[in-house]
Amino acid sequence: MELVLNSPLDMHLHLRDADMLKIVAPLSSYSFAGGIIMPNLVSPITSIETLVEYKQRVKDAIGDDNFEPLMTLFFKSDYTYDFLKEAKKYISAIKLYPFGITTNSKDGVSSMKIEDLRQTFEAMSELNIPLLVHGETNGFVMDREKEFGSVYEQFATSFPKLKIIMEHITTKHSVDLLDKYENLYATITLHHLLITLDDVAGGALNPHLFCKPIAKRPEDREALLSVALLVHPKVMFGSDSAPHPMSKKESCGCAAGVFTAPIALQALATLFEKHGVLENLQAFVSDNAKRIYNFTPIKKKVVLEKKLFTTPVLYKNIVPMFAGSELPWSIKNVR
Amino acid sequence: MELVLNSPLDMHLHLRDADMLKIVAPLSSYSFAGGIIMPNLVSPITSIETLVEYKQRVKDAIGDDNFEPLMTLFFKSDYTYDFLKEAKKYISAIKLYPFGITTNSKDGVSSMKIEDLRQTFEAMSELNIPLLVHGETNGFVMDREKEFGSVYEQFATSFPKLKIIMEHITTKHSVDLLDKYENLYATITLHHLLITLDDVAGGALNPHLFCKPIAKRPEDREALLSVALLVHPKVMFGSDSAPHPMSKKESCGCAAGVFTAPIALQALATLFEKHGVLENLQAFVSDNAKRIYNFTPIKKKVVLEKKLFTTPVLYKNIVPMFAGSELPWSIKNVR
Repeated sequence: MELVLNSPLDMHLHLRDADMLKIVAPLSSYSFAGGIIMPNLVSPITSIETLVEYKQRVKDAIGDDNFEPLMTLFFKSDYTYDFLKEAKKYISAIKLYPFGITTNSKDGVSSMKIEDLRQTFEAMSELNIPLLVHGETNGFVMDREKEFGSVYEQFATSFPKLKIIMEHITTKHSVDLLDKYENLYATITLHHLLITLDDVAGGALNPHLFCKPIAKRPEDREALLSVALLVHPKVMFGSDSAPHPMSKKESCGCAAGVFTAPIALQALATLFEKHGVLENLQAFVSDNAKRIYNFTPIKKKVVLEKKLFTTPVLYKNIVPMFAGSELPWSIKNVR
Repeated sequence: MELVLNSPLDMHLHLRDADMLKIVAPLSSYSFAGGIIMPNLVSPITSIETLVEYKQRVKDAIGDDNFEPLMTLFFKSDYTYDFLKEAKKYISAIKLYPFGITTNSKDGVSSMKIEDLRQTFEAMSELNIPLLVHGETNGFVMDREKEFGSVYEQFATSFPKLKIIMEHITTKHSVDLLDKYENLYATITLHHLLITLDDVAGGALNPHLFCKPIAKRPEDREALLSVALLVHPKVMFGSDSAPHPMSKKESCGCAAGVFTAPIALQALATLFEKHGVLENLQAFVSDNAKRIYNFTPIKKKVVLEKKLFTTPVLYKNIVPMFAGSELPWSIKNVR
């Protein structure tokens, strides 16, 4: 049995930089036709110059033209209209991080007040640049995303022309927001479709499934599954694949992030088949994203087959999700 | 400033066995006058012979008579009245573990049905042997204790003469049960008074604060604090101090348990002083336990003083809570 995916896209991807970039970029570029590349490097991408340089490093790491890196800027509240008009030639979106909320977010935004963000939001609205948001407060870990919901609502109503993408949503509450506000969209990761807090801290502690936002309750996962499997028109796949060296995951004070890029399509095919909706995977991993972002990705056919895939224990020094486990679907070839 | 604690007691303590026992027993016996010793060794304590042998190993590890190990049996549903009548000479309580719920609980009870437990419960009621319970289901990690609540209610109403101690409670729901059923009591740990899930998995992952039951929500901690600080007559201190070698805590699949025994009194004094109820600590760490268990501990005065205590980074190969941090209270001497 085969499954052909046309131009699968990963709409939330961390490629990092330097040595790590060289390890992970080819893994994404093999499976996917393109992806939204996160700008939270150690020095965040806030200028066209650094963006263009980073894109070149990404392209060099990939080595061919079979993957389109869709670049993003790190949100700043003082971007001008003129700057963004020029930046728009190079970027697909701008990513907003609240201050200190996740890896490399110390330069994030401290105030979520509309007035403090208006200048950039208005320019983005006029220029039709999507806003991507890591939507968490600094409250109690299980409540952070829900608490951020009122911020999403304010953004959505105050800037009705702004396309707002709630990144890596993890709660039923966020799912419910999709149908309340026309200009709210969402990406969903592989791991949040598969795990709950039980898998992180229910038995033994599992650092490789520790991520931000943290996996939530069973009813939250059910809500995510319902919109992903039936492909709600406002959701799309974004892996949030976030590699860290094994040493940083398995030591005390484990870094947040699950590395899923190289096994994402195999695992998604497994999940969608299990729920009897394999035919919906194309829309979840590509068609919805094309429509929401209004773009045409490069043509690429990824052929999966029903053949056991043994996930490597390591990709160099990075432990992937399902390390050492078998998945029933493999990638047969890419055309 | 000094604080004299008369015969402080640790009513839930893991002393382990062999080398680990030799490390941790003297630490508890220095600070405390006695403690309820958990029976979940690799081979659980289910006979008088193994109990007597274990008690001797505990006494040997302590090396003097300044600490009274209050022994417990591992609950089995087929204990006979005659066996328990004899066992009562050696034990202070019996500890019930649901199957597979925590460290060394693979021999725990599979069914929580009253009829399956009646034989042992009736004998314990008649012999006035307290029942200690690790009250968790195998449900979602944040719900396990609350889900177990209905089991506590069934036990309490079906065996009104049985003294039931809900061990290491972590939720507001459990706190509320104390006032609903006359025969329900509770122990509370130090760490559950101090942390929430935020401290385990909110920032970085902290294996040294990973324990079962897992730390819950802020409102749960508030409920625990309210009954501990004001010393509800049905609660008492039980550290659930649960040492594991550092290698088992800091590696992938981290073992559950927080090691608090050697710093418990210093940290409790700090907590009670911070809340302006230092005078209540005596009742929480001793008087309530004496009354609930109806026993007279050995006489021992533990004198604390307001002097910085730097918590060791390691006790041999075990990382304690507050490792390397300073606490404002130290133990001055023990008389």
